[in-house]
Order: sequence, then C-alpha cells, then structure tokens
Amino acid sequence: MIGLLDLRRRIDAGDLRPRDALAAARERIAGGDADLASFVALADLPDGPIDPSRPLAGIAVGVKDIVDTADLPTEMGLPAVWGGWRPRADAAIVSQVRAAGGWIAGKTASTALAYLDPTPTRNPHDPARTPGGSSSGSAAAVAAGLVPLAIGTQTGGSVIRPAAFCGVAAIKPSFRLLPTVGVKVQAWTLDTLGLFGAGVDDVAHALEAICGRDMRVGEAPGMVRFGVVVPELGGAPEPEMAAAVDRAARALERHGMAVSAVSLPDDVLGGWHASPIVQGYEARVSLAWELEHHRDRLPPGIGGALDAAASITAADYDAARGRARRARGALRAVFADNGVDVLLSPAAPGPAPARDTTGDPRFNRLWTLLGVPCVNVPGLATPSGLPLGLQVIAPFARDTAALAAAGVLERVLRGLD
Amino acid sequence: MIGLLDLRRRIDAGDLRPRDALAAARERIAGGDADLASFVALADLPDGPIDPSRPLAGIAVGVKDIVDTADLPTEMGLPAVWGGWRPRADAAIVSQVRAAGGWIAGKTASTALAYLDPTPTRNPHDPARTPGGSSSGSAAAVAAGLVPLAIGTQTGGSVIRPAAFCGVAAIKPSFRLLPTVGVKVQAWTLDTLGLFGAGVDDVAHALEAICGRDMRVGEAPGMVRFGVVVPELGGAPEPEMAAAVDRAARALERHGMAVSAVSLPDDVLGGWHASPIVQGYEARVSLAWELEHHRDRLPPGIGGALDAAASITAADYDAARGRARRARGALRAVFADNGVDVLLSPAAPGPAPARDTTGDPRFNRLWTLLGVPCVNVPGLATPSGLPLGLQVIAPFARDTAALAAAGVLERVLRGLD
Repeated sequence: MIGLLDLRRRIDAGDLRPRDALAAARERIAGGDADLASFVALADLPDGPIDPSRPLAGIAVGVKDIVDTADLPTEMGLPAVWGGWRPRADAAIVSQVRAAGGWIAGKTASTALAYLDPTPTRNPHDPARTPGGSSSGSAAAVAAGLVPLAIGTQTGGSVIRPAAFCGVAAIKPSFRLLPTVGVKVQAWTLDTLGLFGAGVDDVAHALEAICGRDMRVGEAPGMVRFGVVVPELGGAPEPEMAAAVDRAARALERHGMAVSAVSLPDDVLGGWHASPIVQGYEARVSLAWELEHHRDRLPPGIGGALDAAASITAADYDAARGRARRARGALRAVFADNGVDVLLSPAAPGPAPARDTTGDPRFNRLWTLLGVPCVNVPGLATPSGLPLGLQVIAPFARDTAALAAAGVLERVLRGLD
Repeated sequence: MIGLLDLRRRIDAGDLRPRDALAAARERIAGGDADLASFVALADLPDGPIDPSRPLAGIAVGVKDIVDTADLPTEMGLPAVWGGWRPRADAAIVSQVRAAGGWIAGKTASTALAYLDPTPTRNPHDPARTPGGSSSGSAAAVAAGLVPLAIGTQTGGSVIRPAAFCGVAAIKPSFRLLPTVGVKVQAWTLDTLGLFGAGVDDVAHALEAICGRDMRVGEAPGMVRFGVVVPELGGAPEPEMAAAVDRAARALERHGMAVSAVSLPDDVLGGWHASPIVQGYEARVSLAWELEHHRDRLPPGIGGALDAAASITAADYDAARGRARRARGALRAVFADNGVDVLLSPAAPGPAPARDTTGDPRFNRLWTLLGVPCVNVPGLATPSGLPLGLQVIAPFARDTAALAAAGVLERVLRGLD
C-alpha cells in the first residue's frame, strides 16, 4: 500500500514532486487495474501548477462512482441506466478534495446504486473473494496500492466492511461531518461519506484536510478505555473473527489500556432492527425514478429490495425512526455507564467471502443508523492471510477520539507481527 | 385562483375531464404568463391516458426550477451557470407528484440558487411589487390562477413569505416530510420543500396525495388554542401587519377559539441568531463548485453571501448547530407551558415591497431552523388591497394540527369579508 503521510513527508522534504507522485499513481493504475477492476473511469493528469504546501498536494484520490464529478462520468454503479452521465457540478466533497490540493485520479467501482449486487472488482488478497461493497473499488484500489486515498459511502456497511475485507484503514465519520451534497441518495438519514487509506493516521490527515477541522491523532493518548462489544445481531461472528477480537483485547491490555466487556441494552439493539425499515422506505422514495422507468435494468438485489420496500408503510417508517432516536440516546448512556471511551467490535462477521456476494453488513448497520464515527483498523488476519478488520466506535461527533483509539490499536497490532 | 379541490370535485362528478383541466391550465399559462414571468419552462401536455381516480389527476403543477425534472430544463434560477441543464432523473417529489396522477406543467422561476436576488417575476396583485422569493414563480403562478398547485422550497423564508405576499395558502411541512432528493442543495439542515395552493384544504389534499400520509383537515376541530407570537427579531412588523394579527386574534376569539399571547424564551430566540450561521456555512460548502468556477456569474446577493460566509469557522457552525438543538427543545416546552396547540404569527413583516428585493425573511427563518410545520393563511389585506399573510405554526410532525388550525383561521377570516 501507498501511505498518504509517507508521500506527504517526501513532498515536504523536497524528495518528491507532487506531479511525479500523481504520475506514479496513474502508472500504477494503468498497470495494475486490468485484473483488479477497481476503477471505472480515469482522469487525465492535471496540467496546471500544483502548490506543494496544500495538505493533499501529490495525492491521487479514487472517488466512488455515485459521487458527482464535473470532468468524469458518474454512472452510479448502474451503467445500464446512468451510462455516460456527466454531472455539471462537482459534489461538495470533490470540491473539498480539490481545494485541499488533491487530484481526482478517477472513479471507483460501486455496486449498482450502492446496494448489495457485486461488481467485477477483485479482492487484492484473493481474486476469488469479494472486496466487499458497496464501495468495492475504493477499498480495493487502496489495498492494491494504486492510490493512497479513496472516497466511499456507507448506508448499511459499505465503507467499514470493504475496508475490513481488503485490510485497509477507513473512517465512516459522524453523520454529516462530510457533506453528501452531490452524492447519489439511497437513504438520506443513513448515507455517510467515508475515507480509505493505508493506515489510521493517513485517513486522519485526509479527513482533516477535507473537512477543515482538527482531526490529527498526534501523540498517542496515555490510556484509552475500550469496551469490547460483540453484538448478537443476525448471528455470531465467525470463529476466526471472535478469536481476533480476543487477541486484540488481550494485546491492548498488555499495552496498559483498560479493556472491559460491554453489552448493548435493548434500546440500542432496537436500532438494528429499525435500520432495514428506514433504509428500505427511504430507498424506495429516493430511487423512485429508477424504479418507475428502469425496473427491468436493475440487478436482482436492489430491484428486489425496492419491490419489497413497497410493503413498508409511513407508520412503519415513523416507528422505526422513533426507535432510531431512542437507540441514539441509549448509546450515549452506554459509554458513560460502562466508563469506556470507545467501543471495539468486529467490522465484519469474518474474512471476505466469495465474489458472488459483497458480504454481510450486519455488524455495521447499527452504527450507521446511530451516526457515530467508526474506524476500521487493519492488522489481523486469518491463518491463510486474509484480512480481519476490527472497528473502533466513538460517541457522536467524537471522531478524533475514534481515530486516536484506532491509532493505539493499530500500533498494538503492528507489535503483534 | 383555481381551487385544487374544486377541480377534483368536478372531475369526480364527471363534469370535467382531467385532460381538459390540464389543457385549460396550459392555455391560461400561454395567455397570462408573458407579463407575470412566473414560468421559465413549459411542458407538453401528456399524451397517454389519465386515470381520473388518482388524487392529483387533472392537476397542473408548477415546479420550482431548482427541482430536478428529467423532461424539462432545470436551471437553478441561474441560467448563466446552469443554462440548458437537463437532469437524467426526476427529483423524488416529482416522481411522487406523477405517481399521484399530477402533471408537471412547467418549471417556475426561482431566484439564483434559491437565495435573495430578485427574479423578473411580478406580483399578481401589483406588478411593481415582488412576489417574494425564492419560490417567486410558484407563488405568483398560483396567485394568478395559472395552476392550482405549485412546489417551492424554503431555506430561510422562501415558501411562506412569497405565499404571504401573493395571498395564497402554502405549507412548509415538518423538516424532511417531503423528500429533498434531487433538489439543489443550499443548506442541508434547512432546505425544506413546500406546497402552494388557493386554500388551506387544497394544500392539505396535495400534501396527502404526495407524501401518502393522512393530512386531510376534514371537519373543523371544535376548539383550537392559538398562541399569538410576534417575535421582536430584527424589528417589529409594519403597523398594517400588527393590526392584521390583532384583527385575526379577535376574530378567532369571537368564534370560540382560545387565544393567548405567547412570548418566546431566549433559548428559542437563540435559534434565530443561529440560522444565518448555519445557512452561510452550509451554503458555502454546498455551492463550492459555483463559487470556485463561476464566481463572476453569481448575482450580488448570493455572491456576496458566499464570500462573507468564508469567515464562519467550523467551530462557529458547531456552536450554531448546538443553539439550534437547544431551540428545538425549548420550543416544545413553549407549546406545553402556554397550553396552546399552535402559534399564530406574521408570515412577513408587512405586504410585498417593491421588486428590487424579495422581501425580508426575518419572520420565517426561526421556524425553518426549528423544522416545524408552518402554514400561510391568506385572507387579510391592506386598505389598498395588498395581501397580508399570517402563519400558523405547530410542533414538529404535527402537520395535520397546523393545517386544521390554519383551516379554522381561513374560515374565520373569510367571515370577515
């Protein structure tokens, strides 16, 4: 993988010109993406001057194909309906990346309308396995070392799960910390932009550069109190993941961190059951045009989900939104009542499964609904070398706490190598 | 004006064919809009069959030009930047209108990017005066009797204020009751879709038809407790408006309603001061592409506002969002503590001013920030015949209460004629 901060340090030291860093990324993509299929459109290298002092100067960025770009196609993962579509304006986050000096290297593969139907993208660790989804190309492109930064979105588990399967760091920040203006809507109370990078400090730097808020992890915090939570939601994690959680918890303790087991109260778990109702109802409203005019061009996953959502009434939706509100309040109490700063939880049920699915978002959708920051920390793997991701979860708006704790875990896991 | 429910009753009785109702609207627009300038694009009449039983069959609908339409241009009130733009998909609310049987008659004039710079649109009551903005064309088209229903948006006061100036009914529903998917974003925590019609029962029917929830006012509620509130925010209302509020309050009392004076606590008023900070910060993020690439093509109002917003820091914004949250909680207590069902308040400082502005949103922006339903009730006027609008405000999600109370006020004001 290509570390964003490594590149920035070389640029700051005068050892690397930003333009050469971008050209190298362009060459890596040209050489390495034919089999991977992580990109669906490529940009020309910039021809103007590049100010090396800007925080993302020299950084090639992959952008999920449901995010509007004025100079590149935006086909929503569904070229049968959105083929050749060119927005007039950039999405707000694209403007932010460009303002920070970053270069949009191209558009990365998204599942159709950011739902569960697989893309052709391969997992760099095993081409027979899924990179996860829906931000399939963004996770795979960073994992394969093509670009140091990529942008994705999560409505159920579409950032943290592919990061876990591909063994890269990623943050799904607090809801609306990154602006979704110009991003194809699936579910407006859930859709959340996220960032992929080689390590936790890379995504922290990128988040700070993009949103203009202090996010740097800086020096390691002295002590972090981790609450380990393995929610029994839709089934236990696979044995390899359960072992990975235990291994990480013991390693954190050895490094002086406080680690305790946390269980979630029913009011929090209620949010998990509310999530598919909220997502289905909003998706059917948001994607009404596709459903009305192009039902026959939708792949089975999203087509079937939109059909099924016809049975969700406004009253069902209102009740689910009420459960989501209660769950948010109840989660705030979980941190306080258990005396923990962050939660540590599986980022996915296990390693990446075969390519006929994008994997199961059951360990993600609760946190998306709750709008709290989640960071995938890579570093553990199955005996055969497939990545196993753990996520660190902080209270709403405590993105820096999530990143700092994730950085601690990342360093501890590196020490296990 | 053309009453939506009048048309529907004639269609239901078999006295009017939906297609003839649409053709009549098309002819009225062709004949009457040259001087009014309420429409910026017109659709062809539909050529397929029309099911007369659908709730908006036979209803011609004007749609503000910041709302995406697949079959009509969508120029954001800013043709210098967005000229000739044709979205591929309909906005969600356009799909909802079509699903309810409505016909999109055309796009109505919006101020540039839905901010304060005036459009060429005239006020049907006095061509030297503004129809208000930013939903200028939607309010004027209904007031001039061109269409029975129009769609607008409100970020500060862009639905209720033009409705007041043009003497039509309008609802700005609870935040997110109508989906903003496919609507140009100015400020994502404020932007709210709204509906214009001849009378309160017309907008209630349309809201129900569009959002699929029970909104009909039905029989008059026996007794409604009105709290009269004239917030001293940015200056008192003009004398004619102050007199109109008193007149309405006395008339409500004579008709057996409970009327009391309500003053807003500081925590609620704090929301008013937070509103321009939230709006400015979000607009600068949302409209970054226009600002970066087309600053010279922005009219002075929106251009200057975006420039000025550069000084709003993320910390300012976070503090303003915190004040907004506190204001929402404090407003809930206002209803309970004062024992009132709804609030009654000026919808604008006075009648429509001259056309060099779109008027002052100072009596609207607090309620937009708070996300509560507001209904403009027409019926009062200055001695020279200019409309004076009063708004009825209900707690969040109590849109039916707002509409029912507005219906009571509308009937009482009609009795004053």
